[in-house]
Amino acid sequence: MQNCFKAPTDLEYDVYVLRIGHRPQRDKRITTHVGLVAWSFGAKGIFIDSKDENLKKKFDDLKNRWGGGYFTVVTGVDAIKFTKEWKMSGGCVIHLTMYGLPVDDVINDIKAKCRKLLVIVGAEKVPRIFYELADYNVAIGNLPHSEVSALALFLDVLWNGRERRLCFEDAKIYIVPTARGKRVAEVRSDD
Amino acid sequence: MQNCFKAPTDLEYDVYVLRIGHRPQRDKRITTHVGLVAWSFGAKGIFIDSKDENLKKKFDDLKNRWGGGYFTVVTGVDAIKFTKEWKMSGGCVIHLTMYGLPVDDVINDIKAKCRKLLVIVGAEKVPRIFYELADYNVAIGNLPHSEVSALALFLDVLWNGRERRLCFEDAKIYIVPTARGKRVAEVRSDD
Repeated sequence: MQNCFKAPTDLEYDVYVLRIGHRPQRDKRITTHVGLVAWSFGAKGIFIDSKDENLKKKFDDLKNRWGGGYFTVVTGVDAIKFTKEWKMSGGCVIHLTMYGLPVDDVINDIKAKCRKLLVIVGAEKVPRIFYELADYNVAIGNLPHSEVSALALFLDVLWNGRERRLCFEDAKIYIVPTARGKRVAEVRSDD
Repeated sequence: MQNCFKAPTDLEYDVYVLRIGHRPQRDKRITTHVGLVAWSFGAKGIFIDSKDENLKKKFDDLKNRWGGGYFTVVTGVDAIKFTKEWKMSGGCVIHLTMYGLPVDDVINDIKAKCRKLLVIVGAEKVPRIFYELADYNVAIGNLPHSEVSALALFLDVLWNGRERRLCFEDAKIYIVPTARGKRVAEVRSDD
């Protein structure tokens, strides 16, 4: 696990994700993927507007094995109120949308002005107010794709790709990269 | 639409995606997102192992409005046979898996040796044979996240981010990026 980007030590921005429009049945898997990207690409937590205990439990199991225990999962959040409070506390609000400005045109400004970032990703229809509350409406390409890929690309651009070497010091298991096959190692308590 | 990365003119690699383990009911939305990433990040088509006419129709509608008519969607493909034939025809096979070698360690080799790339993305369990058939088992980080984000990051690294300016010359509508709001323009036939 040497030569890795250590979370949370090496994370110079505090990034949280706000997932809006989550419908526990229909969006279960997409929201899980959004959460996995948040966790594995260096965000510090995810807030989800609908209540979803299963999702919370899933991430507890995941963190228990792979690490990243600092990553918080909060469901049942009032998204508008939360976003307004975030801004009042001095945080930046980034809304990822294909209608926004190209990420490459705004990322330097974001890096210079923000330390605490709330990255909003929506499902199909995002209420107009989020476009207005956002400090930056940011597009990862101006074509439709996915909130999962949009979030991943945004974080990759923010960290300059360093998150691809992310590792968690509190992991119980980790992958040993191999050209062919699957190698998972256990971290011994006396290591 | 000026200053954009023109598909398929500017695409120096022929990239196709092979989606395996697709279960039309359960994976409907994830596979749709994988396909949208393929299309909007410069791949030339997607092959899906299970038959799924709805998915094909969805992409026909999409291409009709947003362009990228060259993008092919083929469902009901025998994935092992297809992968073997791809290799025999001289193409490279890239399997995206969290167990593989870090993308940053292998991308230069891939760029130097490959012109035709088949990028395989699986659902939960990928049969061992794909690890063996692959010329490269490639990881986008060695943590679990999503086939949607893995594909997006791989293509982004392959194109050095240029695909974030992708545009289609056969589009009927396109987005005019704005700081706040939604602007969609129509391409007039006499433009």
